[in-house]
Amino acid sequence: MKYAIGIDYGTLSGRAVLVNTTDGRELASAVYPYPHGVMERELPDGTPLGIDWALQHPQDYLDVLYHTVPEVIRQAGVSPRDVIGIGTDFTACTVLPVKKDGTPLSFMKEFSANPHAWVKLWKHHAAQDEANRLNEVAEKRGEKWLANYGGKVSSEWAFPKLWQVLNEAPDIYDAMDLWVEAGDWIVWQLTGALTRNSCAAGYKALYNKRAGFPEPSFFAALDPKLEHVIDDKFAGDVVPIGSAAGGLTVAMAGRLGLEPNTPVAVGNVDAHVCVPAVGIDRTGKMLAIVGTSTCHMVLDTKEVQVPGMCGVVEDGILPGFAGYEAGQSCVGDHFAWLTDKYISKQHEDEAKSRGLTIHEYLTEKASEQKPGQSGLLALDWWNGNRSVLVDVDLTGMMLGFTLQTEPWEMYRALIEATAYGTRMIVENFRENGIAVDAFVASGGISHKNELMMQIYADVLNMPVQVAGAAQGPALGSAIFGAVAAGAKAGGYDDVFAAARAMGKAENRVYTPNPTAVPVYEKLFAEYRVLHDYFGRGENDVMKRIKNIKLAQSSKEEV
Amino acid sequence: MKYAIGIDYGTLSGRAVLVNTTDGRELASAVYPYPHGVMERELPDGTPLGIDWALQHPQDYLDVLYHTVPEVIRQAGVSPRDVIGIGTDFTACTVLPVKKDGTPLSFMKEFSANPHAWVKLWKHHAAQDEANRLNEVAEKRGEKWLANYGGKVSSEWAFPKLWQVLNEAPDIYDAMDLWVEAGDWIVWQLTGALTRNSCAAGYKALYNKRAGFPEPSFFAALDPKLEHVIDDKFAGDVVPIGSAAGGLTVAMAGRLGLEPNTPVAVGNVDAHVCVPAVGIDRTGKMLAIVGTSTCHMVLDTKEVQVPGMCGVVEDGILPGFAGYEAGQSCVGDHFAWLTDKYISKQHEDEAKSRGLTIHEYLTEKASEQKPGQSGLLALDWWNGNRSVLVDVDLTGMMLGFTLQTEPWEMYRALIEATAYGTRMIVENFRENGIAVDAFVASGGISHKNELMMQIYADVLNMPVQVAGAAQGPALGSAIFGAVAAGAKAGGYDDVFAAARAMGKAENRVYTPNPTAVPVYEKLFAEYRVLHDYFGRGENDVMKRIKNIKLAQSSKEEV
Repeated sequence: MKYAIGIDYGTLSGRAVLVNTTDGRELASAVYPYPHGVMERELPDGTPLGIDWALQHPQDYLDVLYHTVPEVIRQAGVSPRDVIGIGTDFTACTVLPVKKDGTPLSFMKEFSANPHAWVKLWKHHAAQDEANRLNEVAEKRGEKWLANYGGKVSSEWAFPKLWQVLNEAPDIYDAMDLWVEAGDWIVWQLTGALTRNSCAAGYKALYNKRAGFPEPSFFAALDPKLEHVIDDKFAGDVVPIGSAAGGLTVAMAGRLGLEPNTPVAVGNVDAHVCVPAVGIDRTGKMLAIVGTSTCHMVLDTKEVQVPGMCGVVEDGILPGFAGYEAGQSCVGDHFAWLTDKYISKQHEDEAKSRGLTIHEYLTEKASEQKPGQSGLLALDWWNGNRSVLVDVDLTGMMLGFTLQTEPWEMYRALIEATAYGTRMIVENFRENGIAVDAFVASGGISHKNELMMQIYADVLNMPVQVAGAAQGPALGSAIFGAVAAGAKAGGYDDVFAAARAMGKAENRVYTPNPTAVPVYEKLFAEYRVLHDYFGRGENDVMKRIKNIKLAQSSKEEV
Repeated sequence: MKYAIGIDYGTLSGRAVLVNTTDGRELASAVYPYPHGVMERELPDGTPLGIDWALQHPQDYLDVLYHTVPEVIRQAGVSPRDVIGIGTDFTACTVLPVKKDGTPLSFMKEFSANPHAWVKLWKHHAAQDEANRLNEVAEKRGEKWLANYGGKVSSEWAFPKLWQVLNEAPDIYDAMDLWVEAGDWIVWQLTGALTRNSCAAGYKALYNKRAGFPEPSFFAALDPKLEHVIDDKFAGDVVPIGSAAGGLTVAMAGRLGLEPNTPVAVGNVDAHVCVPAVGIDRTGKMLAIVGTSTCHMVLDTKEVQVPGMCGVVEDGILPGFAGYEAGQSCVGDHFAWLTDKYISKQHEDEAKSRGLTIHEYLTEKASEQKPGQSGLLALDWWNGNRSVLVDVDLTGMMLGFTLQTEPWEMYRALIEATAYGTRMIVENFRENGIAVDAFVASGGISHKNELMMQIYADVLNMPVQVAGAAQGPALGSAIFGAVAAGAKAGGYDDVFAAARAMGKAENRVYTPNPTAVPVYEKLFAEYRVLHDYFGRGENDVMKRIKNIKLAQSSKEEV
């Protein structure tokens, strides 16, 4: 029996699984929460961060390897010789400045007090000005690639974040040799060689298989200092997903308890790696990875321009297909916001006394309600809107409050709002000629929250299949690890074959409830009107009061 | 030295004060929380209530007398002979069905399981259908009195509530001999004689000093059974405020430890009784009683029609003036909603460890923020909108949420929203020719929350004077008690003289902060746009989803 290890880097922790390569059965798994979590208020040394910042610590990523890989080998009791491949996936665009040898600038004394030396997490939203300006310039110049990204580049992506470094910390910009995805950096640490995976490069760094990166003249139009940004900061070949990046270094193999030269797959993105893992191999079948945020992916044979999607990348998800991506930047984070900050002692104690987590407790209470019974309606924009409005300056809204409004009613309203947001995405694809005829959900929340999945089925008026193990992305990475090893070593030569053998079929289907569907039709119609009123320029109150907030906050800092 | 007792019946408790009649100095006070509080979910026997119901228990009102009056006499150590008068004030329109002898139907076994037999509290909002229909009919018939109430009768008032009884419980309607304000009922219990005070009759029961009640033909147009409603259910003379209703019965005097025949003032309304108590004796000086809800009162020499106000009543507040009233149906209730249901153990513990109430804790945190710094904006409609939209079907809204939004930011946003609501009322009066050139705040919250009063000054861009004792309404009632006693007995012959001697002058003034004013100007402009968008028909989403809520809730009850 041969084994592969998959390592999934999420927003708050890293998880490794060890599976056999015959049928993908999981023998062991281990999670390591990042000791520094998400840094939103200050650096480890107390240096304060601005509004909308979100950083991480590269050491946490290494510590995930050191803790979880030896642990899954120990748990499974397998011989390191039989571990034939390793795959990884990462949040994206999560990106950091490093020296030529891979040393993060945040590890260097002379830079470590500068926030710009650190990893900018995907949900770092402080580069919105740069994103706005970049979109303006690209539109004015008629850049053809812009339409591949729904007509808007997100502030979450590689170039707005890099440009922010140049604007606010030119010394850091000058000192870095490379601007690299954390997912490629971790593969580099494993193999000793820099590769850039085609998925992140395509979706987050404007790379196109045929056209390459945007031209120097475009970057020069942003800032003359950026003219040669690709040559200056983007060394390293873009390598198609499904390839091997190299083998484990001797040092890393020793540290992890594996054999040197064990094949390691090129990096991948946490959401995209799930598509083969849940057995999707055709057009029209949307996969939604539901977690702190949600990523929606669907394949099509044609490449068309869909406004408000996150991107279309040829071979970006599976070879031979145009891979479409859309997203909601805040899903589980909504619920965590409520449970972290707004749950009273009384409810906490009640949950505890019944052996329930707060999420389970609120879900149970919310399950007792009928659709619409809370009288609440929310816009799921606590962390901006990624699709279809592509606007991080939008904020959350809820209405229908009464003095009787209970926390579980808000909880349900937030679930419903994320369902409406998903339906906006589905309808937007359809209106632009991309079929969505089936819906698969994966990711942690999809396995944990039955109420939520039922609401999604009711709001979408489509069956929702929950697929994959709870460790979906890690299994996907293990599949890519088995492909990196190749058939001769006991793995596979292509990802379709690996997915068919190792991927998990659907294990639960939620069908729309015919009494709920018409109620949600009405509520979604209301959502849509408010979505457009606040999101499409009819009343830009959210942006105006955000500007007041920024002005008042900066005053305080002076 | 002579003394008067004032008894203030609030939403959650009753409070008595004993003051001397020379300068109004308080010698003792006692509070008695209603054991049954506000019944919103069920009757004491478990009978469930519908949505928007709010009932009370008449026994609680009697128990307030039995507990607080002996207590203030004991505390003050005065002789009952020197207590020369008693005044009371009550929430309104708080109303109940009684038999000829004053027995509440809820005290009678055969009716006590019927919710309609109980006291309908002012914030009972389940008679909206009746209010809508009543307004429709009044408008169609061109009823002249309608304009005296801002063009709309509230569902909170006497006739919609009574009509709801007729529609839903005709047996209760038939069984009652009288439909009486709780404030008049308690005076009846004290004196043994039924009077109806001109203030409640004028503001809540469509009574006009010159025209009397609306005509039988109007009531017949609502429902033929209502044609003679005034003769059938409204026995008892309407008596001007400032008069004596009678003297304490022997039984009640014994129970309270006072002398039989001690003069008792006619009933009054909790807000209106405060106007003389804070020394207001002129036009243009608005008094806002800030509590669970807020009542705004201003005097003018002319009687004009102001859309969206609650009412204008000749001699309704002070003799010789047209008394204008407007209101916000939810102010302190907003903050209580948040503190009761949404404060985490962590914050509760922090507050406790520092010896602060949750309100003080949140206020302290909110005080550290600049105007607009939270990025939140709310519509203060958790309990509908009384002025200037007069629409209980509106609901609360908040926007600007992010994942960083803290409870004290919501707390401040709710304070600000109530300030914007007050400014809408002030501007509406001005636009309709009623001057508002000074602003006095009274009521519990005005003395407790400095941040809130500063925000009101900043939002209104006017100085806010905080006036009266914390027990403002109770002092006002004591003043009316001294007037009921008359000058010969050691009291006063008119309310102006009593107010000058016993009323409390301003004790604190908040002046607008010039750096805050322009920020709040901008935020108020945003509030106004959303107020009109959601409140004036541009998007009636709040009403439509409330209808869905009602439909889904009633399904459950079947």
